[in-house]
Amino acid sequence: MDFSIPAESEARHHAIGEFVRARLLPREPALLSAGFRAAEPELEELRGEVRAKGWWAPAVPAALGGLGLSLLEHALVSEVLGRSVFGHYVFGAQAPDAGNIELLHRLGNEEQKGRFLTPLVRGEVRSCFAMTEPESPGSNPTELRCRARREGGDYILDGHKWFVTGADGAGFAIVMAVTDPAAPPRQRATMFLVPTDTPGFRRVRNVPVMGRAGDGWLSHGEILLQSCRVPERQRLGEEGGGFAAAQERLGPGRVHHCMRWIGICERAFELMCARASSRTIEGQSRLADQPLFQATLAECRVRIDAARLLVLKAAWTIDQEGFAAAAEEISLAKFFVAEVMTGVVDAALQAHGALGMSDDTPLAFYYAHERAARIYDGPDEVHKLSAGRRILKRHGG
Amino acid sequence: MDFSIPAESEARHHAIGEFVRARLLPREPALLSAGFRAAEPELEELRGEVRAKGWWAPAVPAALGGLGLSLLEHALVSEVLGRSVFGHYVFGAQAPDAGNIELLHRLGNEEQKGRFLTPLVRGEVRSCFAMTEPESPGSNPTELRCRARREGGDYILDGHKWFVTGADGAGFAIVMAVTDPAAPPRQRATMFLVPTDTPGFRRVRNVPVMGRAGDGWLSHGEILLQSCRVPERQRLGEEGGGFAAAQERLGPGRVHHCMRWIGICERAFELMCARASSRTIEGQSRLADQPLFQATLAECRVRIDAARLLVLKAAWTIDQEGFAAAAEEISLAKFFVAEVMTGVVDAALQAHGALGMSDDTPLAFYYAHERAARIYDGPDEVHKLSAGRRILKRHGG
Amino acid sequence: MDFSIPAESEARHHAIGEFVRARLLPREPALLSAGFRAAEPELEELRGEVRAKGWWAPAVPAALGGLGLSLLEHALVSEVLGRSVFGHYVFGAQAPDAGNIELLHRLGNEEQKGRFLTPLVRGEVRSCFAMTEPESPGSNPTELRCRARREGGDYILDGHKWFVTGADGAGFAIVMAVTDPAAPPRQRATMFLVPTDTPGFRRVRNVPVMGRAGDGWLSHGEILLQSCRVPERQRLGEEGGGFAAAQERLGPGRVHHCMRWIGICERAFELMCARASSRTIEGQSRLADQPLFQATLAECRVRIDAARLLVLKAAWTIDQEGFAAAAEEISLAKFFVAEVMTGVVDAALQAHGALGMSDDTPLAFYYAHERAARIYDGPDEVHKLSAGRRILKRHGG
Amino acid sequence: MDFSIPAESEARHHAIGEFVRARLLPREPALLSAGFRAAEPELEELRGEVRAKGWWAPAVPAALGGLGLSLLEHALVSEVLGRSVFGHYVFGAQAPDAGNIELLHRLGNEEQKGRFLTPLVRGEVRSCFAMTEPESPGSNPTELRCRARREGGDYILDGHKWFVTGADGAGFAIVMAVTDPAAPPRQRATMFLVPTDTPGFRRVRNVPVMGRAGDGWLSHGEILLQSCRVPERQRLGEEGGGFAAAQERLGPGRVHHCMRWIGICERAFELMCARASSRTIEGQSRLADQPLFQATLAECRVRIDAARLLVLKAAWTIDQEGFAAAAEEISLAKFFVAEVMTGVVDAALQAHGALGMSDDTPLAFYYAHERAARIYDGPDEVHKLSAGRRILKRHGG
Repeated sequence: MDFSIPAESEARHHAIGEFVRARLLPREPALLSAGFRAAEPELEELRGEVRAKGWWAPAVPAALGGLGLSLLEHALVSEVLGRSVFGHYVFGAQAPDAGNIELLHRLGNEEQKGRFLTPLVRGEVRSCFAMTEPESPGSNPTELRCRARREGGDYILDGHKWFVTGADGAGFAIVMAVTDPAAPPRQRATMFLVPTDTPGFRRVRNVPVMGRAGDGWLSHGEILLQSCRVPERQRLGEEGGGFAAAQERLGPGRVHHCMRWIGICERAFELMCARASSRTIEGQSRLADQPLFQATLAECRVRIDAARLLVLKAAWTIDQEGFAAAAEEISLAKFFVAEVMTGVVDAALQAHGALGMSDDTPLAFYYAHERAARIYDGPDEVHKLSAGRRILKRHGG
Repeated sequence: MDFSIPAESEARHHAIGEFVRARLLPREPALLSAGFRAAEPELEELRGEVRAKGWWAPAVPAALGGLGLSLLEHALVSEVLGRSVFGHYVFGAQAPDAGNIELLHRLGNEEQKGRFLTPLVRGEVRSCFAMTEPESPGSNPTELRCRARREGGDYILDGHKWFVTGADGAGFAIVMAVTDPAAPPRQRATMFLVPTDTPGFRRVRNVPVMGRAGDGWLSHGEILLQSCRVPERQRLGEEGGGFAAAQERLGPGRVHHCMRWIGICERAFELMCARASSRTIEGQSRLADQPLFQATLAECRVRIDAARLLVLKAAWTIDQEGFAAAAEEISLAKFFVAEVMTGVVDAALQAHGALGMSDDTPLAFYYAHERAARIYDGPDEVHKLSAGRRILKRHGG
Repeated sequence: MDFSIPAESEARHHAIGEFVRARLLPREPALLSAGFRAAEPELEELRGEVRAKGWWAPAVPAALGGLGLSLLEHALVSEVLGRSVFGHYVFGAQAPDAGNIELLHRLGNEEQKGRFLTPLVRGEVRSCFAMTEPESPGSNPTELRCRARREGGDYILDGHKWFVTGADGAGFAIVMAVTDPAAPPRQRATMFLVPTDTPGFRRVRNVPVMGRAGDGWLSHGEILLQSCRVPERQRLGEEGGGFAAAQERLGPGRVHHCMRWIGICERAFELMCARASSRTIEGQSRLADQPLFQATLAECRVRIDAARLLVLKAAWTIDQEGFAAAAEEISLAKFFVAEVMTGVVDAALQAHGALGMSDDTPLAFYYAHERAARIYDGPDEVHKLSAGRRILKRHGG
Repeated sequence: MDFSIPAESEARHHAIGEFVRARLLPREPALLSAGFRAAEPELEELRGEVRAKGWWAPAVPAALGGLGLSLLEHALVSEVLGRSVFGHYVFGAQAPDAGNIELLHRLGNEEQKGRFLTPLVRGEVRSCFAMTEPESPGSNPTELRCRARREGGDYILDGHKWFVTGADGAGFAIVMAVTDPAAPPRQRATMFLVPTDTPGFRRVRNVPVMGRAGDGWLSHGEILLQSCRVPERQRLGEEGGGFAAAQERLGPGRVHHCMRWIGICERAFELMCARASSRTIEGQSRLADQPLFQATLAECRVRIDAARLLVLKAAWTIDQEGFAAAAEEISLAKFFVAEVMTGVVDAALQAHGALGMSDDTPLAFYYAHERAARIYDGPDEVHKLSAGRRILKRHGG
C-alpha cells in the first residue's frame, strides 16, 4: 500500500488546479448568472486554452484525442476540476458527453464513430442521453415505456423522456427505447443515435429545476418522441442490448460523479474556512473562534477525507480489475459520497448565514442543484439495497 | 391537560383548510412561476374572498380590524395556511408585515398608527424590516453599522442593509440604525419608519437567492441608505429602544415561523403519501410498498407530531404568561422545528425522485427557500447556545 | 387545548418527586450494587412508606386496591418514578407485574383473580411473563414454538423461553403457548397461569445481560417447559385468545415504558447539568462554559420536551378513546421516545467522561440495560414499518 | 497510489486471521465470563503458540524481540487481532503495555530498560499507566493534581488516580506527577516508574465499569499514592518532560486503538451477516431479506471501509513522516473511527434482538465497554476542536 502520488501526476494536478483557480473561479459567478448560451463564447475560449496546454479530455483514450489517464489519475484531476461548476465542461470531461463518448467508443461501429464520436470528443457538438421517463421509475430501467417498432429498415420511436441533461442545444441524443416488450426485462431495450433535428424528436421544454429552467448544457430537457423515424444504422449496439449498455455506462458514470463531488466538497470547505477567518461575530471574535464551528469543520474534513479515499480506492480497483469487480464499491461510494457532499455543502451554507442563501457564492447553486446527487444514477435507497444484497451474498447469505 | 380543540375552532380550522385546498393549491404553481407582480391581481381577488368570509388578519387584534385569535388558536390556523406558499399572504398574516403590525401597535404613537399601521392592517400597503447587514452578523444586532445621526429635528441615516424581505414594492421600511454607538450595546439602536420613496433610500437590487432574484413580496432587497433624512416624528419608540423592540418582534416572529413550518411539513407529508400510493416501482409494487419508504414516513410523522406539540405548547405558554416566560421554549422550538421541517421536505423531495427536483411540485421551492429557516431570526447555533445557557442557569449553573 | 396540570395532581406529583429524591436516590447505588435479593428487605420497607402515604399502585383501579389514576395522570407520576431504577418497584408499578395485573383484571375469572391477582396487586408475590423464545422472532408472536397439548382436563406445556424478566423469585408466570398450530396465525396461542413450582417448569439460568446475570426482579430468566402439566382452570381467557390478549397487554405496556423513559431522560439530564456546573475543564472554565456542551444540552432538552408531549398526548388519547384509537401514536412514540432516551443517556454519559463509564453514577446502568428499549415490545424497525403502513392506509394508500 | 497488499503481508495477515478464528474465537465466551485471573493460564498457553509461530509482539522493534512491523503493516495485523477481545493480549500487543514499551524504549536508560522493558516485552510482567485523575479533566493533562516532591535523592508521590487499566496484577506503573506546579503548564509533570509493591502505592479498588469491576488486565484500577517514595533512578526521562512524553505516547496509542476498532467493526459486521442469514422472521423470510436490514448493512459497510482507509492512510503518513506530521489525521481518525465502531456495534446488537443484549455474543461486551472509545485518549469533543483549529491554521485562519 502506498498513498503517495507520483511527482508527475502531482505536477499536472497542481497546474490544473492553478488554472481552475486563476481562470475559472473568478469568472464563475458572471458565467453562471449569464446562462449557458451567453457564457458559451467565453467557455469556448477557455476550452482553447485547455487544448493549448494539452489537457483536453483527460479521461478519453489518447487514440481518440484525449489524455488517456487511468481512472485513478483522472480521479485526482477530476476533484480539481470539480471545484468549479464549469471545470469539467471546460476540460471536455462533462456529463453526459463523457458517458456518451464511452458508449460510442465501446459500441459504435466505424460509421457511427466517424459521424457521432469524433465531433463529440473534439467538443464540436454536444450530446444528451434520453433514458429517464416521467411515468416510469428512473431507478428501474426495465420498466421503460418508450417504444421502438421496426418498420422496414427503420425504427419508429414513440415515448416521453425528461431530465435529459443538456438536450437544449445538443446535436444528438442517445435514446433508450423498448424494442421487444415480451423479452426478459433486461433484454427489452435498445439504444439509438437520434440527431435532435430528426422529425418527431421534440424538446417540449427545459424542466424548471429549483426555480431555474436553465439553458443549453445547464438544463434538463423534456422530450417527446412522436413517430420519430430512425434508420437501422443509427441503432447503437445490438437489439436488446440497451439495458446492459446502460449499466456499463452508469458504473463509470457514478464514479465520475463521485470524483466531481469531492471537488465540490473541497470548494465548499475552502469557502467555509475563508469565511470563518474573515467573519467577525462579536468584538474581536470571529466565526473561526467559535467551538461549534470548529467542531463542524473537523466533522466535514474527516468525512471528505474518508469519501476521497473511497473514491480513489474504487478507481484503483476499476483500473486493476474492471468495473464488474468494483460494483459493490461503486454502489457504496455513490450514496456515501453524495451524503458527504450534500452535508458539507449544507454546513458551508450555514456557516455563511444569509450570504449562503444568496447567489453571491456558489454554495446556493450547489445546495439546490447537487441535491440531485442522491437521486440520479440510482437513488440512495436503491444503492443501499443492492449493496446490502451483494454483501449478504458474499457472506454466504 | 386537555389536547382537544373546541368545536368552533375546529370548524374554522376546517373551513380555512378547505379554502386553501380548493382556492389556493390549484393556483399555486401558476402564481409561483408567474412571479409576485404578475400574480398580485389574482392574489388581491383571493384576499377579497378571505375578507368576505371574515377571516382577514387572524392574529391581529379585533380592535385593529383582525380576527383577534389567541396565539394558540392562531397556531392552528397558521399550520393550515402554511400548506400553501401564498396562504399567509392571502389571509393578511404574512411576514414581515405581521411583525411590523405588532411593532406599530405596541410602539407607534397615534399619528404613526394612522399613517402606517391602518393601511398595513388593511393590506393596502406592504412594508419591510431593514435590520440585517452584509458586513455585520445578523445573529448579533449589537454589532450593527447603520448609523442615524441627529441633525436638527431630523435623523440622517447611512448604512447598508440586505435580506430585506419584500422591500421591492413596499410602501415603507422599519429601519434599525445606531443612534448612540457609545451606549451599552443593547441601547445603541433605534427604529425608524422610512417610506421607500424617501430620498437617500435606495433599493440596489433584489438579492438573487438560490438562483432567483424574485420580485415584490417574494424577494429580498438590498438597500443603501445614503444621507437619508428622516424626521423625528418617524422615529418608532424611544431612542435607544431599537434592540429591545427587535427582540420583542423576534420572539413572536419565531413562533409564527414555527407555526407556518408545521404547515409546510404537513404539505410535504401529504405529497409524499400521495406520491407513494400512485408511483409504481416495479410490476405491481408501488413506492408505498417499500419498507425503506414506510420507515421514513413513520420517522417524518413522529417528528412532525412532536414539533407540532412543541409549537402549540409554546403558543399556550405565551398566551398564559407572555413572551418572556417562553424564551427558552421559543429558542428550543426555533431550531428543532426548522430541523424537522427541512428534514421532512428533504425526505419528501427524495421520495419524488427527479420530479422532486423539478418545479412541478412545491417541494423544490420549499427545499431551496425554506433552507433559510435555519438561519434567519437567529441561526441554529445561536439558539442552541442561548437555550443551553438558560437551562444551566435554571439548574443553578 | 390546555397544557396546565390541576393543582391537586401537581401537588401529588411534587410530593412523590420529593419522596423519590429524598428516600430512593440516596440509596440507589448501594441497592443496585447489592443485587435484588439483598436489597429486597430495604425495598420492602420503602414500599411500606409508600403504602402509608396512600400512593401504592398508582395505575391500578381503586376497586383492586390501587390509586386508580387516569393514564394521563399516571404518566405524570411515572416520569417522576422513572428517575430512580427502583421507583416503579417501590410504588408497585413495575413491569412485568403491572401488565400482568391488567391481563388478570381483564381476562381472569373470579377464582384466578382471588388466587393470582389479589396477592400480585398487594405486592405479596411477583410474577413474570413468558413469551419471548430464543429460536423465534420476538417481534412476531405468530411464530411461537412453545406448545400446549390437551391431555384430559389438563394442558401439557413444552417449550423454551427467555428474557422472562423477573422469573427468578416470581411466584407464577403467564406463559404463551400454541394450542392449535393449524389455526390462523393470530388464533394459535393461549395464555396459561403457571406457578413457578409446577413440575416441568424450570428456570435454567438468568441470562447474563451486558455482563450481569442479575437476580430476582433485576434479572431475565431462561425457562424450559418440559411436560409441564397445567390444569384447565389455569388457562387465562379463551383458547386461541393469547395473541389478542398479548397485543392488549403490549399496547399499554409500551406507553408505560415510554413514561418511565421520560423519567430516565430527566434523571440523566439533571446529572448532566449538575456535572457541568461542578466540573472544571481548565483554569476557571467549567464544562458548563463549553459551547459544544451547551448546544448538546439544548438538543437533549428539546428532544425530551418533544418526547414528553408525545407520551402525554398518547395517554390522553387512550383515556379518551381507548388503545385501539391510539395504535399509531403508540407505535410512533415507542421508537421515538426510545431513541430520545438512549440518545440523552449517551450524551450524559459522554459529559461525565470516565466517570460516566463507571458505576459511580446510574448512567452506565441506564446506558447498558436500557439499550433494550429499542428491542423489547417490538423493535424500532417493526414499529416504523407498522406505523408507516397505518399512515399510508389513512391517506388512502 | 497503490492499494494492493504485498503477497507476503497478505499471507501473514491471513494466517493470523486463521489463528484468531480457530484458536481464540471459540474460547472467547468462556474466557470472558471466567474473568482474567481464571483465564490467564489458558491465555499463557495461547501466547506460547503465538511465540512459536514467530508472531510475538508485532509492533515492537526486532531489536527488542518483536516482529518489527511498520505501522502500516501492523495496522493490517491489528485489525485481524481486534476481532477477538483477547487478540492483542495473546499477541503481546495489548494496551497499556504496548504504549509503555514505546515509552521505555524511547525514554528509558539502560538500567531502566533492563529492569522494566525487557520483561515487559517478553510478556513476563504486565504494567499500567497512571495518568487520569478523578478530580481533574482527563482531557487536559496540564491540570493534574498528583504531586511529586523531591526529598534527598528520592521523590515523594501523593495523588489519586483512576481508570488505570490493568493495574490489578501489574508489576509496575508509569505514574504522571507534577514536579513543578509553577512551571509553564506543559513542563509541570514528570513520569515515574513505580513497582506496584512500593510502599504508599495502593490499589483501592477496581472501578466497577458498566456493572463489572473485572480483574487483572480486564480491569481499571483506582490508585492512591500516599507518601510513596520513588528513587531518582526510577524517573523516566527528564524532569518536566512528562507532558511531552505523554503526548508522544498518546499519538501512537490513538492509532493503535483505531486499528483495533476496525477489527471490532469487522467482527460485529460478520456476526450481523451470519445472524441475518440464519434468523427467520416470518415463514420463509429471513432477516437477510428485510430491506431495512439490507440498507443498514450497506451503511455499516461503507463506514467501515472509509474508517479503515483513514486508519491505513494515517499509519502510512506516520511511517513516512512521523507522528507530528500526522497529528491532524490522527485526531480526525480518533473521533471518526470511534463513531463508526460504536455505530456498527449498535447496529449489530440491534440486528440480534434480545440475543444482542445477552452475553451469548461479544456484542454486549463491545457495546458496553468500547463505549469508552469516545472518551479515553481525548474525548470526541477535544479532538474535534483541536482538529478544527489546526485546519483553520493551515487555511491561514
